[in-house]
Amino acid sequence: MPMTSADPIENLATLIRCPSVTPAEGGALTVLAAMLEPLGFTVERMVASEPGMPDIENLYARIGTEGPHLMFAGHTDVVPVGDAAAWTHDPFGAEISGGEMFGRGAVDMKGGIACFVAAVARHIERNGPPKGSVSFLITGDEEGPAVNGTTKLLQWAAERGERWDACLVGEPTNPDQLGDMIKIGRRGSVSGTLTVRGVQGHAAYPHLADNAVRGVIALTDALMHPPFDAGTENFQPSNLEVTTIDVGNRATNVVPAEASASFNIRFNDAWTAETVMAEIVRRLDAAARDEKLRPGRAPVRYDIKWAERPSHVFLTRNNQLIASLSGAVEAVTGRAPKLSTTGGTSDARFIKDYCPVVEFGLVGQTMHMVDERVAVADLETLTVIYETFIARWFGDARS
Amino acid sequence: MPMTSADPIENLATLIRCPSVTPAEGGALTVLAAMLEPLGFTVERMVASEPGMPDIENLYARIGTEGPHLMFAGHTDVVPVGDAAAWTHDPFGAEISGGEMFGRGAVDMKGGIACFVAAVARHIERNGPPKGSVSFLITGDEEGPAVNGTTKLLQWAAERGERWDACLVGEPTNPDQLGDMIKIGRRGSVSGTLTVRGVQGHAAYPHLADNAVRGVIALTDALMHPPFDAGTENFQPSNLEVTTIDVGNRATNVVPAEASASFNIRFNDAWTAETVMAEIVRRLDAAARDEKLRPGRAPVRYDIKWAERPSHVFLTRNNQLIASLSGAVEAVTGRAPKLSTTGGTSDARFIKDYCPVVEFGLVGQTMHMVDERVAVADLETLTVIYETFIARWFGDARS
Repeated sequence: MPMTSADPIENLATLIRCPSVTPAEGGALTVLAAMLEPLGFTVERMVASEPGMPDIENLYARIGTEGPHLMFAGHTDVVPVGDAAAWTHDPFGAEISGGEMFGRGAVDMKGGIACFVAAVARHIERNGPPKGSVSFLITGDEEGPAVNGTTKLLQWAAERGERWDACLVGEPTNPDQLGDMIKIGRRGSVSGTLTVRGVQGHAAYPHLADNAVRGVIALTDALMHPPFDAGTENFQPSNLEVTTIDVGNRATNVVPAEASASFNIRFNDAWTAETVMAEIVRRLDAAARDEKLRPGRAPVRYDIKWAERPSHVFLTRNNQLIASLSGAVEAVTGRAPKLSTTGGTSDARFIKDYCPVVEFGLVGQTMHMVDERVAVADLETLTVIYETFIARWFGDARS
Repeated sequence: MPMTSADPIENLATLIRCPSVTPAEGGALTVLAAMLEPLGFTVERMVASEPGMPDIENLYARIGTEGPHLMFAGHTDVVPVGDAAAWTHDPFGAEISGGEMFGRGAVDMKGGIACFVAAVARHIERNGPPKGSVSFLITGDEEGPAVNGTTKLLQWAAERGERWDACLVGEPTNPDQLGDMIKIGRRGSVSGTLTVRGVQGHAAYPHLADNAVRGVIALTDALMHPPFDAGTENFQPSNLEVTTIDVGNRATNVVPAEASASFNIRFNDAWTAETVMAEIVRRLDAAARDEKLRPGRAPVRYDIKWAERPSHVFLTRNNQLIASLSGAVEAVTGRAPKLSTTGGTSDARFIKDYCPVVEFGLVGQTMHMVDERVAVADLETLTVIYETFIARWFGDARS
């Protein structure tokens, strides 16, 4: 009798039917535990707490006690349904239609978990227990504030003596089709808010006032131009977006005294969070004092408040890990995946402090959208890729 | 027995004690009528209405039936007290302390009215009724929306056959001391609001989005630079202020789809309201299509909404009127006043369609502020200036 958890389609349907919108566990970790325990995994549940935040349930499961030790990381929490009426299928129904399974989390990323579980099940079925250890590090707080999620779970496991040799994160990394792209690093991310203080006045007497809008435009312009860099060997150019400017002045004859602007920069490995923040301050100070921008005026008065916890840039240089995964993808799909560092941050930014980490999962096109869905054929293909990867990684790691 | 209304200090105290914060009449027009009727003026009250707005009381008073006809224009309404606790004297008490009379409207512009009433009273006392006509055109809606004020009162009077040869507006025109400045024109004023529409997206994938903040910065920058002109013979340079920019995006990882900005331009006689609006549109269109600002991007999509009723620029070229007033100021103060077109708009912008108009009044430093006040000595000096002006103007007009 084949083990149930060797079927990624059934695994995914079971997971989708758990309404695990962050911070709710929704039964998702319980059904995952029920898939893993029959395979021989020791499953532990870890609840993380923070004052003023809901408790979050997380899961850590391991099979094997020896090295090498491969970790699969991911999350069972999902973003909200959004416009429920706009869905053509029940977002927690896992209905299959036209060769696709519909449901919140189908690609981000219950699908990735479902496939890795199936891959491990098939590996054990064919080869017996892994020649080393495999673990699942699964959080319920990736789509939320991520405070009670992967960071705390990693710390908790490390304090218990857990050590890993490599990690695969199962986030959807493929833009168009399975095999497009492996993520081998991520840009860093820093956000901040500027507040410019001028002097309020009457629009007819601007020389008696100091329009904070002029100041905020000069400063934000200096953040946007020139580009921070032209890109590096493994990364696209760093990019800064001003995400909001707000003044809130409703009187057309009043020159406003205060204006604020927020920005976010995604930076590459030409920078660290610290150097990019220093460069931002340098640009702001230069613009604030630029006589050309403010002839005969005092420097723009401003302050900057940085958002908590910058995301650090990282690049995985472990060739064996990358080669195992890339080779598995190419062997199954016939296509050499692009090794990319594009896109947003992921929990890989926390894992990289413990072991080399790469990311590969489903096609991400419908993530976070109405009618999130996955091609059923992709679930089988990804399972085969994951199983191939497991075999290659343990083979390479032991050779 | 001297007529009470020949004393500007007593006139002003009576007016200040009427709490005529727009739109309240507060008794101010009633006490003004009581000053004018004994002098021989025919006083009429005109109530102006507009759907959705409070009714406004206005006053028109005339002595004489023949030309030449000199109008004095002003307002008895005042701005709110503001921080009442910060006043050192009752804002409606007209208390005198240290040679100054304190009260809301002391300089803006119950003081001007008080002095002109006294000047006319003295003129009549010395010379008998004017050799022509003098009228008071006084509104209760200058500090408010100005919809039910001077425009409607002028129209109402003109429909009854009133015609004027010249007008003096008694607004506070002197920056530092009495005799500094006569206003002989005013810049025009146009306001508008831009709305830029981009495409929302994720800060990590800016190429898939179109950040509306970038668009609004490019467009507002084009409004501010280069200057519209370098000034003209009688006017300072036109000046545009961006009075607000608002996006309202609170998510640091989201690129916003919409941003708005409002602006106000004070323009000189190198422009009309129509040509300055056309120039603004030309600048916006050029910036929206500027390839340098948006390499490889479609033009910025935006629309513009103009505020109602631009203020038209004007310059009074009636040399006799200007010479009568300027000569009177110099004869009394020993100083040649500057003929200026600086500052905000005033109701003179409406009057200029009926007759030549100039403005001269008290020192404006404390207008709209806590502890608004006037030097008692200035009230007497301004009364003498006004009386001298009346004598010169009628003398010149009849010569």
